[in-house]
Amino acid sequence: MRDAYIIGAGQTPFGAMPDKSYRSLFTSAVAAAVSSVPNGIDDDEIDEAVVGSLGVGGRQLGLSGPAATEHAGLHGIPSSRIENACAASGYAVRQAVQAVKSGMADVAIGGGVESMTDMSSDVTKYWLGVSGETEWERLTGTTFSGVYAQMASAYMDKYDATTEHLSMVAVKNHANGAKNPKAHLGFECSLEDAVNAPVVADPLNLYHCCPTSDGGAAVLVASEDVVDQYTDDPIRVAGVGAASERVGLFQRDTYTAISSSESAAQSAYDQAGIDPGDLDFAEVHDCFAIAELLAYEDLGFCDRGKAPSMLEDGKTELDGEIPVNASGGLKSKGHPIGATGAGQVTEAFKQLSGKAGDRQVEDATLGLTHNVGGSGGGAVVHVLEREVAR
Amino acid sequence: MRDAYIIGAGQTPFGAMPDKSYRSLFTSAVAAAVSSVPNGIDDDEIDEAVVGSLGVGGRQLGLSGPAATEHAGLHGIPSSRIENACAASGYAVRQAVQAVKSGMADVAIGGGVESMTDMSSDVTKYWLGVSGETEWERLTGTTFSGVYAQMASAYMDKYDATTEHLSMVAVKNHANGAKNPKAHLGFECSLEDAVNAPVVADPLNLYHCCPTSDGGAAVLVASEDVVDQYTDDPIRVAGVGAASERVGLFQRDTYTAISSSESAAQSAYDQAGIDPGDLDFAEVHDCFAIAELLAYEDLGFCDRGKAPSMLEDGKTELDGEIPVNASGGLKSKGHPIGATGAGQVTEAFKQLSGKAGDRQVEDATLGLTHNVGGSGGGAVVHVLEREVAR
Repeated sequence: MRDAYIIGAGQTPFGAMPDKSYRSLFTSAVAAAVSSVPNGIDDDEIDEAVVGSLGVGGRQLGLSGPAATEHAGLHGIPSSRIENACAASGYAVRQAVQAVKSGMADVAIGGGVESMTDMSSDVTKYWLGVSGETEWERLTGTTFSGVYAQMASAYMDKYDATTEHLSMVAVKNHANGAKNPKAHLGFECSLEDAVNAPVVADPLNLYHCCPTSDGGAAVLVASEDVVDQYTDDPIRVAGVGAASERVGLFQRDTYTAISSSESAAQSAYDQAGIDPGDLDFAEVHDCFAIAELLAYEDLGFCDRGKAPSMLEDGKTELDGEIPVNASGGLKSKGHPIGATGAGQVTEAFKQLSGKAGDRQVEDATLGLTHNVGGSGGGAVVHVLEREVAR
Repeated sequence: MRDAYIIGAGQTPFGAMPDKSYRSLFTSAVAAAVSSVPNGIDDDEIDEAVVGSLGVGGRQLGLSGPAATEHAGLHGIPSSRIENACAASGYAVRQAVQAVKSGMADVAIGGGVESMTDMSSDVTKYWLGVSGETEWERLTGTTFSGVYAQMASAYMDKYDATTEHLSMVAVKNHANGAKNPKAHLGFECSLEDAVNAPVVADPLNLYHCCPTSDGGAAVLVASEDVVDQYTDDPIRVAGVGAASERVGLFQRDTYTAISSSESAAQSAYDQAGIDPGDLDFAEVHDCFAIAELLAYEDLGFCDRGKAPSMLEDGKTELDGEIPVNASGGLKSKGHPIGATGAGQVTEAFKQLSGKAGDRQVEDATLGLTHNVGGSGGGAVVHVLEREVAR
């Protein structure tokens, strides 16, 4: 199994861009990834493409992989769309890693795209809903905020947690996002604002929910055999783990942990030969504030029930022990479904390359990305390492 | 790059089964694949799953990979949906091969499923249409039969071909499908019937078009390191090629060839170290009769313009030089979109294992499968070889 490296990664701004097509967003993301490769790369050196997308809005639902890549000027190569709800492009990056490790590609691109704001919010809600368990959750009226609200209620019932802890996630992530020029909601918010926002699905309020965003992101993965052509500062894919879990919440053993995140992380740690304590930073899937608390525990950053005290102690702030969501996370940076996972890897690439600007994590050498589909039906974790810094 | 082997493959009957859910169809296909493994396999020995599906009908459009695999009893493993229009599960099998070759899985399952007949035909037509180029073809009213009719017209204009040649494809494939107990339209048809059928999109008539089917298919791929546990009769993935092409017909250089098929085949032949003349049989993508003629030429079975004479000479009949679509093909066996590519590999597995019953190709040692997305926006080709027979 040969090693795979991230040689470039880029994204569009995330935000409300109803005038941009999914094709133009993907094309801009590919261009950003290509231009980020230190020693440059030509389009025709890219052997394979995987495009993550839920396909919100009923656009090019069939062949949207080739339709996106032809617009981006990537002609003739194997190109397909991967769908894993909100984890689509985390899986697309993993897929690109597999293509490279298999020997079937020397350089592969894994990215994703979603257009969400050019529809009425009712249509968007329908399209988001399709990622919920259809027969027993979606068709009985359960929305995603409702699903995560149930997880938050169960967590607050079981552990010493309050809605203020949920709001602390928003305050932290908005503080980081305000330093990210590509963030959708790039403004700070006070704890008071985040506590007093209107309720969406009790106990979750508006500041406990990520926005609906448009955007694209793309990551270039190269094999150990060619990586030196493209960069003198290789970022190694030290570990990649993925897993699934029951799609419907009602069929799970617990509401206060996501088993797919746990086992994806464990698998990535095992491959990388590290413990979570070795990580310098993490980008985690905070679609709703409770999801970030669960992530701290599922990923092994703290024991069960201890996520609230991690927040109280500022351990996951930008200057904390393990900065989480330096990019602003889904909450502030935004959540264009199919682009989110590749966007996380893009942030990790920037951090590990020392190019994260005002939100740079000091001495970032080892980072993690964590992308969840639905309420945990799928999860994928990457551990990335800057080799020259070792 | 370690070798990958097909150790098992199975499918549901293809047909109109509006009472079967996509989950139950996929589960039956997995069960059929598992039970076909000569020395047996336990579910928990399967490390990864890839589910091909267009997602016709707006069912579980998000997380349908994990939703299908949990129903099939494959819990916890990486599971995702791949979409490449009608080539979805050809790509899913390729994906399983990549997973195995990458070293990230020892055994992976690549399959697919589609439910199509539980909707009104208008809805089905819409859902099929989404795989057409959206802005310039679908929204201007072009259907898939219309796209392939344009290709047929161009072919008949350029070469010495008539609608009778198109009908000969139907006669041959129905003759084969009549020997396949899993075929959707498992009856013979006369040349007279196939010539005089009602027009669908001139020059294509009803017998020049495949049916709308429900079904599932699944293929088990294992690495060279573990293959001996599962079988004494290994079927090696000797070559796998995939490619993309402009999604919209109007943007292509020609209407009388599909460049993605050509380059996918060339890549598979190069890997396998063979020429098309070495093949003992092929399962090709005959969604419309003209597609089978193009396939003969794109795959190198004959020179350009010579497909009609191959048909006239019976070279692709069951006892011909290179039997094509011994299963009945999409025309007679059926075309449940997401299941078709894995269904082709299932047929190849049966042929190479000597278990194809009345439609068995004599001394089948080397076979090819050819799966096309849309009108050629994507294509994937597998070359499979029975090793013990060499």
